[in-house]
Amino acid sequence: MNYEILNKISVIEYLLEIKEVMDFFEDDEIVAEEIGDGNLNYVYKVKSVKNPNKAIIVKQAVPFLRCVGEEFPLSRERMTYEIRALKKFHNIFPNFVPKIYYSSEDMSLVAMQYLANHIIMREGLIDRVKYDNFSEHISTYMSATLFYTSSLALNSSNKRELISKFNGNSELCKLTEDLVFSFAFMEHETNDNANVKGNKKALELFADNEFKEKILTLKYKFMTQSDALLHGDLHTGSIMINQDETYVIDPEFAFVGPFGFDIGALLANLINNYIHHVVVTKDEEFQSWLLNVTSEVLNKFQEKFLNYWDEHSDSALFVDGYLDNNFLRSYKQKFIKNILRESVGFAGAKMARRVYGVAGVAEIRGIEDKTLRAEAEVLALKISRKFVMNYEDINNVEEIMEIVKNVR
Amino acid sequence: MNYEILNKISVIEYLLEIKEVMDFFEDDEIVAEEIGDGNLNYVYKVKSVKNPNKAIIVKQAVPFLRCVGEEFPLSRERMTYEIRALKKFHNIFPNFVPKIYYSSEDMSLVAMQYLANHIIMREGLIDRVKYDNFSEHISTYMSATLFYTSSLALNSSNKRELISKFNGNSELCKLTEDLVFSFAFMEHETNDNANVKGNKKALELFADNEFKEKILTLKYKFMTQSDALLHGDLHTGSIMINQDETYVIDPEFAFVGPFGFDIGALLANLINNYIHHVVVTKDEEFQSWLLNVTSEVLNKFQEKFLNYWDEHSDSALFVDGYLDNNFLRSYKQKFIKNILRESVGFAGAKMARRVYGVAGVAEIRGIEDKTLRAEAEVLALKISRKFVMNYEDINNVEEIMEIVKNVR
Repeated sequence: MNYEILNKISVIEYLLEIKEVMDFFEDDEIVAEEIGDGNLNYVYKVKSVKNPNKAIIVKQAVPFLRCVGEEFPLSRERMTYEIRALKKFHNIFPNFVPKIYYSSEDMSLVAMQYLANHIIMREGLIDRVKYDNFSEHISTYMSATLFYTSSLALNSSNKRELISKFNGNSELCKLTEDLVFSFAFMEHETNDNANVKGNKKALELFADNEFKEKILTLKYKFMTQSDALLHGDLHTGSIMINQDETYVIDPEFAFVGPFGFDIGALLANLINNYIHHVVVTKDEEFQSWLLNVTSEVLNKFQEKFLNYWDEHSDSALFVDGYLDNNFLRSYKQKFIKNILRESVGFAGAKMARRVYGVAGVAEIRGIEDKTLRAEAEVLALKISRKFVMNYEDINNVEEIMEIVKNVR
Repeated sequence: MNYEILNKISVIEYLLEIKEVMDFFEDDEIVAEEIGDGNLNYVYKVKSVKNPNKAIIVKQAVPFLRCVGEEFPLSRERMTYEIRALKKFHNIFPNFVPKIYYSSEDMSLVAMQYLANHIIMREGLIDRVKYDNFSEHISTYMSATLFYTSSLALNSSNKRELISKFNGNSELCKLTEDLVFSFAFMEHETNDNANVKGNKKALELFADNEFKEKILTLKYKFMTQSDALLHGDLHTGSIMINQDETYVIDPEFAFVGPFGFDIGALLANLINNYIHHVVVTKDEEFQSWLLNVTSEVLNKFQEKFLNYWDEHSDSALFVDGYLDNNFLRSYKQKFIKNILRESVGFAGAKMARRVYGVAGVAEIRGIEDKTLRAEAEVLALKISRKFVMNYEDINNVEEIMEIVKNVR
């Protein structure tokens, strides 16, 4: 079928022809309602009339930025990469990625599992909900997806094939290059200029050339380091969660990039949430739960990544018998420490860009009281600067947590 | 035309149909003779009967390793990447790459300029011929090809397109991963085992886990660092030269990889030649000419690369006005120093792999006197080890040359 934009009537006509979808509904009559963020894509909840609990999500990308309109073009091929990434990640670890019933790259459309009992993690964390399985789940997700799409697991030609499969996602990579690594640190029309204008802290940031030189090094890594298939935008708004389950959604920024970028994105967003509670709710117990979870995520990630590596002796990098076991262990230790360091650097970039850049986070930009908001911004910028200036010297998770705690 | 292997008769029938080739010959009668290394490909010199000075080279890849036979398959698609790289490099700087008259990826065939008055540089250097324009030429070639195919010159989507165009060359990348970075440093059937057996120095190398751990880090960079389009096998056997001109040929290993790999390959091969003259001819004047040229190549490379960079303000990495000029200069200085360091690391790997690995170089493996050969091997391994263990601390070209001179 040639691409056409579906509405809530035509989406049903379309789905009636799709065997995989109608099998799921056991040929019940179905209806669609529009839901979802509406920023980029059309998202429909499609359900059985007879049994409304039987439902799926249908998501279609349109060739423009939906929340602005057709005058802001954004290629709908981003859905191609979202589909490929969802399938790839689901294959690696089905527990943490929605099940796909049907997808069409031609139609820029995917029909997938409806997560009925989950909420966006960012909202839960703002409401001080503790998710005690989260560190276990997300560390498994990150270690498995990153390890099994890297040159530590794949052979040389499979790794290059994987790169090719996602290499066309350059429009969204460029969005990150511009918005995360550049515009947010200089005068730019895309910034939150209502807050930037006459703001001494913003001008200080824009004039902080030492910091910005370091950001440039991180940007170059983002652009050229082909470690593993990334989600590409792994913040707490890309996670659907409840007490039992954790799902990672929306991998439209997926590409083969540096290990530390996904981990750094998550780290930045957990710390931004911590800052919110330091400044706004002042709930110390929740703050310490958050710091504890953050530290668990990083420690468990390292542990599980190394476990996968130990189980997996054959890869593009390793020729059996090449290195003595003690040296192999030392090599792996240095390798994982380097991932941790780069994660901290990327977390710093990600935190700072949320302060004045185009896309703020609810935890900080959403603070209505201007004084409190400015306080949160200062905290975020301080931690970010420590991260960006010192990430190459980090040795363990404790040092990262010390930076966060000591900055107040 | 579907792929078929041409012989010296059918190659003429084939060329008669190619307008670009017959235009070159002004429709003269033409004949072919087989020439060339014969290791991998068929290479024909095709010339005008009336005017034998009017000639071209026709090179065709076959789907096996020619010198062994059809039982050693090697995909002929390597010619696809050779053609693409020849064209790309010729576009960037036509002076240093043979002119292409015609090419066909389907036929794995290229028809190109015949270099009548040039010899393989390795042979010239063994015969102690000084090429006083070489450092000027090759530094321009390397700085231009590396700069203009990097994220410092290209925008984000053009860079990713370039990666995709060469990403399929994984068979030859894997050859490098195996032969340069792995097998040459361990017991392996592909090694020069006549020399390895009972050789104390070889066993020492194979047991040198500190060195091999460092090699692994270089291998990982080779596999994942997408800086620029590389020649991929830039040794002195891939250079055709005379007093006036320098041509770089045979880029069948081309792919987007780390800057330092091409520079390191050349550095390694110049030093291997130096070692030959230290041990065999003992010609001190030629040795000092060689060291001087090596140092010029590296210094001029850096200077020219930085000049291209200064001329070129717009790229994927740089957003105009992002960084203060002093900091931009400091960033560039660190960046180029890092290229120099990685070049030294890769040079070390390249030198050591020539000692016991599958493909030796004439300068060392070609030494007939066994004592002298062993002496050259020891020198090569000593310099290689210094390079590999210390490359991250190198600050300038003088320090590299000191390592080479002091190792005797």
